[in-house]
Order: sequence, then C-alpha cells, then structure tokens
Amino acid sequence: MGVLRRHIGRAGDPDWEGVPIEQYEDGGVLLGTKRVLIGRRDGAASFSLRYFEIPPRGKSSLDRHAHDHGVYILKGKARVLMGEEKVEAGAGDVLYIPPDEPHQFENIGDGPLGFLCAVPPRD
Amino acid sequence: MGVLRRHIGRAGDPDWEGVPIEQYEDGGVLLGTKRVLIGRRDGAASFSLRYFEIPPRGKSSLDRHAHDHGVYILKGKARVLMGEEKVEAGAGDVLYIPPDEPHQFENIGDGPLGFLCAVPPRD
Repeated sequence: MGVLRRHIGRAGDPDWEGVPIEQYEDGGVLLGTKRVLIGRRDGAASFSLRYFEIPPRGKSSLDRHAHDHGVYILKGKARVLMGEEKVEAGAGDVLYIPPDEPHQFENIGDGPLGFLCAVPPRD
Repeated sequence: MGVLRRHIGRAGDPDWEGVPIEQYEDGGVLLGTKRVLIGRRDGAASFSLRYFEIPPRGKSSLDRHAHDHGVYILKGKARVLMGEEKVEAGAGDVLYIPPDEPHQFENIGDGPLGFLCAVPPRD
C-alpha cells in the first residue's frame, strides 16, 4: 500500500513518524530545519514534498534554480522575495515560484515560520 | 514574479483570492469541492496543487490511475483506502498514494475533511 506519515507532534509541532529532522543550512550556516515528507525513498517519481521551519529573524538561502516550488504556509509570517518583488504572506497562503526565479523566505513573525514545499522529485 | 494566492477565508475557511470553487463530482454525484491552488494556468510544469473538501459522511470517488498523489490533511478525520488497506488519518498527517493504487478518502469526522493534494501537472 501507499505511505502514511503520521503526524506525532503535539499541536503545531512539526514531527512525523519515521521522518528525520534534517538541518537546513547554507554554506555551513544553520538556517532552520527540513523534513522530507514524501520523496524518492517512497518511490515518488513525480514530486517531493518537504516541510521547512525557519526561526524568527531567520531566512532561507537566496536561491535561483531550474526547478519550481509550490509552497503552502502552515504557520508564521513571511516576507517572500519572488523575482524583483517582495510580498508578505502568512498561514494559509499559497505561493508558486517558477523556474529560474530568485526567491527567499524571511521570517518576520514572532514564532517559527513553517511551510510545505512541493518540488520536482529529489531527496 | 511568481504567484501569491492569498488565503482570504476566515479561520479555517478554504478561500483563496482568485481561486474558483469547483464542484468535485463523480458521475453527476456531488462529492465535495475542489480548488486548484497551483496549476497549468500558473505555468506550473512539474506538479499541480489542489485543495479538496469533503463534507461529513461523504467520500471521494474510488480512484485508480497512473498518476500518484501526495496528500496533506489540513482538517478533519479520514478513513483512507490505500490498496487493500484502510488507515485512519487526521490533521497534519501526510499520505503518498503511488501510481495505480486504488484509493478513496472517507470523511469519518463531524466537520469537513480538507486536504491538499499534489499531483503531476494537470488542470
């Protein structure tokens, strides 16, 4: 059968059964945490689904790459660079970052910024 | 720049700016509602992201097809058929339905069952 990744964190805590917590870093600098919820190990050939969490005043790396992102913000408040514009986004908002667009997520809230991120298959 | 689909529903209400509410039906029977949050109209070439909502005592169609699903349950309580097994899942749980696996989502809670569903590009 398919895969069930049961959420085992207490309310709001990002922990799933069998999903390791990875350090999300850039050039040796810790930026937050990452969980691969669906990925190659599940045989997923079309997409991967990850969860990222960035602490207050933190930001993701400034990225630009050929693969696109679909993002659903689960909690917190973000300022998001998309191309040459910045937008503010919060829980429930959805973003699509097309291929080759510079992008960066900055936590501008008081609590953790947590979001789901779908990408073409990787991890 | 990319696309921001701002959540405009009140707490828990599934409404996003510029995202039409579609009837989700099977053979003329209304099963719930569907919103395409990221899809072909955004130029998304790798995946689509949809939101489905199924009312209490409702269920999705019994499906089996070549494309796979990545599901994140946002609210409610489900009994999910995956292959020959049924599992119960709730808010925060993640499921991966591989290609060609029979699957069906049944709402076994008192409120709406709402979930995000990533698929290869469509819509």
